[in-house]
Amino acid sequence: MFETAELGHKIDKEAFAAELPALRTALLDAQFELLKSKKFQVILLIGGVDGAGKGETVHALSEWLDPRHIEVHGVGAPTDEDCARPDMWRFWRVLPPRGKIGIFFGSWYTAPIVGRVLETETQAAFDQHLESINRFERMLADEGALVLKFWFHLSKKAQKKRLEKLEDDPRTRWRVTKQDWKNFKKYDHFKEVSARALRETNMAHAPWIVVEGQDERYRSLTVGKTILAALQARLATQGPATAPSAPAPVPAVDHINILDQVDLTEKTDKATYEARLEEAQGKLSTLLRRPEFKSRSLILAFEGWDAAGKGGAIRRVTAALDPRSYEITAVAAPTEEERLQPYLWRFWRKLPGHGRVGIFDRTWYGRVMVERVEGFCKETDWLRAYSEINDFEEQLVKSGAIVCKFFLHLSAEEQLRRFEERQGSDFKRFKITDEDWRNREKWPQYVQSVCDLVDRTSTEIAPWTLVSAEDKYTGRLQVLETIAKRLQQALGK
Amino acid sequence: MFETAELGHKIDKEAFAAELPALRTALLDAQFELLKSKKFQVILLIGGVDGAGKGETVHALSEWLDPRHIEVHGVGAPTDEDCARPDMWRFWRVLPPRGKIGIFFGSWYTAPIVGRVLETETQAAFDQHLESINRFERMLADEGALVLKFWFHLSKKAQKKRLEKLEDDPRTRWRVTKQDWKNFKKYDHFKEVSARALRETNMAHAPWIVVEGQDERYRSLTVGKTILAALQARLATQGPATAPSAPAPVPAVDHINILDQVDLTEKTDKATYEARLEEAQGKLSTLLRRPEFKSRSLILAFEGWDAAGKGGAIRRVTAALDPRSYEITAVAAPTEEERLQPYLWRFWRKLPGHGRVGIFDRTWYGRVMVERVEGFCKETDWLRAYSEINDFEEQLVKSGAIVCKFFLHLSAEEQLRRFEERQGSDFKRFKITDEDWRNREKWPQYVQSVCDLVDRTSTEIAPWTLVSAEDKYTGRLQVLETIAKRLQQALGK
Repeated sequence: MFETAELGHKIDKEAFAAELPALRTALLDAQFELLKSKKFQVILLIGGVDGAGKGETVHALSEWLDPRHIEVHGVGAPTDEDCARPDMWRFWRVLPPRGKIGIFFGSWYTAPIVGRVLETETQAAFDQHLESINRFERMLADEGALVLKFWFHLSKKAQKKRLEKLEDDPRTRWRVTKQDWKNFKKYDHFKEVSARALRETNMAHAPWIVVEGQDERYRSLTVGKTILAALQARLATQGPATAPSAPAPVPAVDHINILDQVDLTEKTDKATYEARLEEAQGKLSTLLRRPEFKSRSLILAFEGWDAAGKGGAIRRVTAALDPRSYEITAVAAPTEEERLQPYLWRFWRKLPGHGRVGIFDRTWYGRVMVERVEGFCKETDWLRAYSEINDFEEQLVKSGAIVCKFFLHLSAEEQLRRFEERQGSDFKRFKITDEDWRNREKWPQYVQSVCDLVDRTSTEIAPWTLVSAEDKYTGRLQVLETIAKRLQQALGK
Repeated sequence: MFETAELGHKIDKEAFAAELPALRTALLDAQFELLKSKKFQVILLIGGVDGAGKGETVHALSEWLDPRHIEVHGVGAPTDEDCARPDMWRFWRVLPPRGKIGIFFGSWYTAPIVGRVLETETQAAFDQHLESINRFERMLADEGALVLKFWFHLSKKAQKKRLEKLEDDPRTRWRVTKQDWKNFKKYDHFKEVSARALRETNMAHAPWIVVEGQDERYRSLTVGKTILAALQARLATQGPATAPSAPAPVPAVDHINILDQVDLTEKTDKATYEARLEEAQGKLSTLLRRPEFKSRSLILAFEGWDAAGKGGAIRRVTAALDPRSYEITAVAAPTEEERLQPYLWRFWRKLPGHGRVGIFDRTWYGRVMVERVEGFCKETDWLRAYSEINDFEEQLVKSGAIVCKFFLHLSAEEQLRRFEERQGSDFKRFKITDEDWRNREKWPQYVQSVCDLVDRTSTEIAPWTLVSAEDKYTGRLQVLETIAKRLQQALGK
């Protein structure tokens, strides 16, 4: 991996001076075209050996490009807001929007590589970590981002010389710390671990570019030209190269589907409802006050037919919660800022921290339901969404979240009855729109989309609950009691 | 203040049941109209005596209104991201956008009242705190927000009874903590302090509504009706009642203006420039690495004529910085989310934390320059902006920020020369737009706006530096050396 970066590459002053002006003009042109078109975002990762010129290269890029449309992020200690959410959240929250360039100086590779070098992470955990990075970068690339990963390399001898040289000069002495020399002792191990990381994550859609770090002119020219070529190539195409799509799901050939298995005849009488509701709410409220919940979070995802009672169920849940402890996100059309980001971004920004409850009234599953059925995204896009969503939920669960997903089911006849009732009611007439009537016409397509999402995203860590909502009391109890049960399991006796 | 809230107000069950349905329908209607029109946001503060039904009232509101468009915020311990910024930042960042309702359960009153009761805040500091709250709420109201502040009161006897009753019931016992009884011992002092707070901040544009907390039906009906009346009244009008505007500034009658005092004949030769630049950059870089800077931040605000060299000056600054330590905000047209907030919001969200540098290429002064000159906002709006901006900068400075503001000045002739040069250059042609040419025609109006902003916002804590930018070298040095000097003064020898 690193052999060609120990050859002593060099560019002399004249050659550099001859190439630079044209490169800068072309880079600026490309950046400006990117900014105007907002076609995609550029994500540059900068990693590698200490002293190999990472900082200098970022400096050069900020000088050559228009720095107002570049965001440079260092990886410092996570803040307490970072710590209360999935590991990747600190990166999710600062992803550049389409049109901009984000430079990550240190990145999602830093923690696993350092962890493995210091042996706080096992080999198996390390490999899993890399695999989840691969999936994340695949998603970024599929969402259109241009991802380029630069690794600055120095041979052991060269690194030693470089550190000594920095130390000798009084103007640069401050840059060499004791930690740098400590790290140097681990050079071989670091090289081995990073070689493995690079090999496992070197993908066509997110390639590693290893750059020999010894000669400043060589390395900055290499980086500049690489970025320029990639930018120009992507600006000239329509979008990301779409991978061949997974085969589209086929409706069950025997016409048995999971939604039909939901027993819609269940009924609950008022007295039973009230007694069980109070009990479930009491349980929920007690569980959420348990000290164990302070390092967990609760994520409630609600989907379902229009008028199936999502709102009513959510109110019965919130009635049991401290009003300061939750946030309800009602999913509407994405805002301008959200449209410039991957589709999951608008959910990332709404994730509850530890000790809190995030309620989503419609969710990230819109991608594989309404966007699929209405053709708002391409088939390849919703087909890849299933595994992207599974990855996302895995991250949530790893960060301590308890994820409950509900689909509220009722019959088309009951829906019609409720629509008509709503139109006659003062309280509820605002809840019904022309779109609701139009959606009814696509009932079978939506049924298919629900069956597919249960198939593909009802995981052991974040299972779907299909709620029998034909009878409102029955539906609400199922929701409340499921949440209480899941919480109880998660927090222990 | 509290006398009428100790009268034993009460609503019986029948009267309540008779009133409630109509109130709920009307509240929902008003909320829906608000949501559709996005005319303003509603900010509800909930404060008062423990056990007076604050939580229950917020619960009732979440039940009566559509909870998906309400955001409830509690005031817990500030996160480390909060602590690195102005005290008010934690509220700024969660202000509801126009169309939504934000409920602050505990609010910007909590810290000063608690501080005063525990005597960690002096009387003078307390009064200053209230005064700055007044100015903040004035700004919110002027920006169109509907601000209603509810104070839930209980007489001392009633509070004691209430706490005892909660403790007697096993289902509510958990709600009474030792801290509540400790607080109860301070009842009289708390009452006195809060009476003063309420008196000093009871404004027509942000009134306090004191509610007797003893009877649940009385208090929730009072709150519901108050909100409804205020909502309906505001929905029926065009906008906030605009206060009579301050008199517009008058051009100096002797035609002497501050910009003319800037010596545009200064010149720096290349050798001097390079030597002084390197020295200033070195100083800057050393100062920012000082441990004292870890609890400070640096905010650089750049304004100036088109082509005066803001970009060039910024590059010379960033060349001295760690690329991970700063963020440049290039002010463009506000996004959809930003347009639903007070005009300062888009700057609030970009404030650097401690140890960091925030660079603004064009700033919050747009309000009193381009928006004023082009008529993008009303005269009353830009006239009030001067003091709002002074308040904002005071908050920045209080939080540890060092605020440097630059206006880069040049002559109209030199600007023309640069425009023409830019149009001929590969590198720079993208920098010049039709708008730049149009702005030139309004030179005198812009001169007036600059003179006025120096008059009104060049404060001892955040002074303006008028930069002689006719000669680029001279201008850049002045910027760099001013920053280094201000930093040196702030961090000490």
